[in-house]
Amino acid sequence: MEIEFWYEFASTYSYPAAMRVESAAKAAGVTLRWRPFLLGPIFGAQGWNDSPFNIYPAKGKYMWCDMARICEGAGLTLKAPVRFPQNGLKAARLALLGQDEAWGAAFTRRVYLANFAEQKDISDECVLAGILSSLGLDAGELIARSNAPENKDRLKVQTEEAIARGIFGAPSFLAGDELFWGNDRLEAALEWAKR
Amino acid sequence: MEIEFWYEFASTYSYPAAMRVESAAKAAGVTLRWRPFLLGPIFGAQGWNDSPFNIYPAKGKYMWCDMARICEGAGLTLKAPVRFPQNGLKAARLALLGQDEAWGAAFTRRVYLANFAEQKDISDECVLAGILSSLGLDAGELIARSNAPENKDRLKVQTEEAIARGIFGAPSFLAGDELFWGNDRLEAALEWAKR
Repeated sequence: MEIEFWYEFASTYSYPAAMRVESAAKAAGVTLRWRPFLLGPIFGAQGWNDSPFNIYPAKGKYMWCDMARICEGAGLTLKAPVRFPQNGLKAARLALLGQDEAWGAAFTRRVYLANFAEQKDISDECVLAGILSSLGLDAGELIARSNAPENKDRLKVQTEEAIARGIFGAPSFLAGDELFWGNDRLEAALEWAKR
Repeated sequence: MEIEFWYEFASTYSYPAAMRVESAAKAAGVTLRWRPFLLGPIFGAQGWNDSPFNIYPAKGKYMWCDMARICEGAGLTLKAPVRFPQNGLKAARLALLGQDEAWGAAFTRRVYLANFAEQKDISDECVLAGILSSLGLDAGELIARSNAPENKDRLKVQTEEAIARGIFGAPSFLAGDELFWGNDRLEAALEWAKR
């Protein structure tokens, strides 16, 4: 009984999902795997060079209202990011290093808070180093490893795996091969995994 | 305490929403208004001349899997429509005539069943006449009225109202000016209306 949580740091709805996925999985008795990936290549292949929430303004306006309701209900702070979407590439490379480590989940949550609650620039290596240090980690060593060619390639491979498994947006949950898209589908994914 | 249910007959997720919205509103003690409209002009203005589920195949593949899970959970039959999306223009003109009449809700549900459970062509006036007759209505008279210029114009005005109020997809729920998009947001819309 396992679910995979596929997330992109620029993705708005991935923020409330990231903040609750670990406790929800634990409560359901389901093992959780964190899987950072990049939406940019997926959106680019669909002809989008920006977030669909910027390309389609009515959808974007709605999303921010909906996010405000969701975050209020979940007790999460939501502040307009310094830009939208932010570039989550460097953060994703670090999260990939941490995805099977004890610190990966906490790092991921801290990056989402930096983006959507603290108005910090998550593409800034200093911001990421600050988060790593606050978790008691060796920021310099991790950032160097995250920028190594093999780790860059690994993130590309992980994104290709997302595409191959049918993922087209974030957050997505996989229970085996069964795909669930959206923060609001977490419960359904956990139910499926428990079958 | 009122919600408006904005729906388009071609829309997949509007099917489970239409089948449950009346009983859910009644259980919540919230008055329900049925508001048929057309997505075609809205999608056209975004540069789409087809359903986004056809334009973006990964999204479409996911939607049909997700719909299968939702319909199974709700005890609803789901069969691949004779085509997707179907042309719901004539059905919407009829639903508009019925939106404030006692028969409107039952007609709407029957059209969704014809589209998504019974593999019928809902753009076929004979199919629509059969539904009206089965409800004890004068099909010929209603179809003639639905095709009158003033009713055609009224549907255009209703669709323009949808756009003006921020609607970009279906199903949508409005509680006052608060917009909720998607079958999975019905409960949130009802909660909002009850505040």
